Amino acid sequence: MKCKKCGATAVINMRQHKLALCQDCYLEWVPERVQRTIEKSHMFSPNERVMVAVSGGKDSLSLWDILLRLGYEADGLYIKVGVLDGDYSEISQRKVEQFAAARGAHFDVVDLAAECGLTVPQVARLKRGRSICSTCGLVKRHEMNRVACDGDYAALATGHNLDDEAAVLFQNALNWATGYLARQAPVLPASHPRLARKVKPLIRLYEREMAAYALLRGIDYIYQECPYAKGATTLFYKDLLNQLEERSPGAKQRFYLSFLQARREGRLLPAAARDVDLGECTRCGQPTTAPGLCAFCRLWDTKKKH
Amino acid sequence: MKCKKCGATAVINMRQHKLALCQDCYLEWVPERVQRTIEKSHMFSPNERVMVAVSGGKDSLSLWDILLRLGYEADGLYIKVGVLDGDYSEISQRKVEQFAAARGAHFDVVDLAAECGLTVPQVARLKRGRSICSTCGLVKRHEMNRVACDGDYAALATGHNLDDEAAVLFQNALNWATGYLARQAPVLPASHPRLARKVKPLIRLYEREMAAYALLRGIDYIYQECPYAKGATTLFYKDLLNQLEERSPGAKQRFYLSFLQARREGRLLPAAARDVDLGECTRCGQPTTAPGLCAFCRLWDTKKKH
Repeated sequence: MKCKKCGATAVINMRQHKLALCQDCYLEWVPERVQRTIEKSHMFSPNERVMVAVSGGKDSLSLWDILLRLGYEADGLYIKVGVLDGDYSEISQRKVEQFAAARGAHFDVVDLAAECGLTVPQVARLKRGRSICSTCGLVKRHEMNRVACDGDYAALATGHNLDDEAAVLFQNALNWATGYLARQAPVLPASHPRLARKVKPLIRLYEREMAAYALLRGIDYIYQECPYAKGATTLFYKDLLNQLEERSPGAKQRFYLSFLQARREGRLLPAAARDVDLGECTRCGQPTTAPGLCAFCRLWDTKKKH
Repeated sequence: MKCKKCGATAVINMRQHKLALCQDCYLEWVPERVQRTIEKSHMFSPNERVMVAVSGGKDSLSLWDILLRLGYEADGLYIKVGVLDGDYSEISQRKVEQFAAARGAHFDVVDLAAECGLTVPQVARLKRGRSICSTCGLVKRHEMNRVACDGDYAALATGHNLDDEAAVLFQNALNWATGYLARQAPVLPASHPRLARKVKPLIRLYEREMAAYALLRGIDYIYQECPYAKGATTLFYKDLLNQLEERSPGAKQRFYLSFLQARREGRLLPAAARDVDLGECTRCGQPTTAPGLCAFCRLWDTKKKH
């Protein structure tokens, strides 16, 4: 198969885009697609500083790589949640360090155990009814937002790809969780002075495409899934969506993009579903929908009780 | 496993309802569930006449059986679309005849080839871009509505079960087809003098539950799927939903019922999505969204051109 752009031997065939590309053209095509997404969704402008949440995996390191290649001032943020099984957190952090060192890029580290006294698995164990994965999500969202606001970054970028977003959308559609459906977006504006703008520049790239990018760019990332993600519902939904994609190439993308379109055109969800009342946490000052303490601060109160 | 109601040996275990039942209790439970659905959705009242669209399959014959057992005045309607492969239409019709004869029930037959000159597969072949299945759906909807209106029936009941509805919902959600999402309902009111009220009394019963009902009631139905349904997208969606159900019993029901709830509560779809302008077909007088002829009448115009 030949590259559709230059006629050289293709290294990837993307049935969903009816497009085959060689290595060089592919490594240009991906950043171009990201740049178009950034512009189309008004994520951030060339003169704004961006913080990239990096886990050491293929998506977040590739996103950082792409933003740097596109000329953005992009710093990294690694949150060490303390997954000890097989030294998962240690290995991930090393991948981030090596990546940054090779590019002379700057990154911050939040070490949760050092700052709060417990790792995510430890604090999750104290909190009945909260899974490790949902605790990890809560902690990361809180800390990413704090560092992005404190550092005056214009936007906080995460490496969610199309498969990630489609799986979350699938989960929310299965329960018709209209509150979540209203808020799942490529850009979440900073609707509060202590809330960072959140952007997802990879939403138009399949997981497979990101894996190919990391591989062809020689990015050294952590291959293993987090040990706690095993058997996760999200992975099950991804598998169902992959079956759909296999039968009908492009189905995953159509599912996600037609959702965004229907909502944008006002054909989905009444206006009322879009508004959320935000207060401020009485301890950390971060915005919260709960009265009093935010969910993050309540998490550490559990610790004190024990 | 024991029957949860009477302690006898159970013949069916429904993980989705956490309920195991013996044959006698199951054959009572199914009509009770249908009766509750009829009342809850205000489908029809005991003194109203109902027309049941029967195909000869397990769902429609079971529905007819249940309505007769519940004491409703329910007549059948068989539409002979003319699927000749393996005498499919002939065999189906015979199942309907035997069922009606055994119960002294009344039914009408619409023979499409006799009335319009062509079978569904024949007319579909003349119409480029229209599949046999979609042509069949169009023809059946038109003729069911005509007979139900002409016969002054209060409602037209079809045997769509939970799996059918969930698969259609899944298809519409995958494309965020908000127009279809607005109209998929257990009851479609007669919003026009020439439009019959359409009701689906089996929407709270799984396909597997209906198969068990037909089997245990000794209903002789046509087992084969229509030969044209092979490889149909709906069957593929049903398979995906079955994988979901296998992992999380009740998921299919939650998907469908939480959709109805979100829409009922006004959390889904803006008000505008619910209104459709209806005109009247200049030939048959049936309501249509198209100007001039309705889709059914245009179908037979194609025939004349050839």
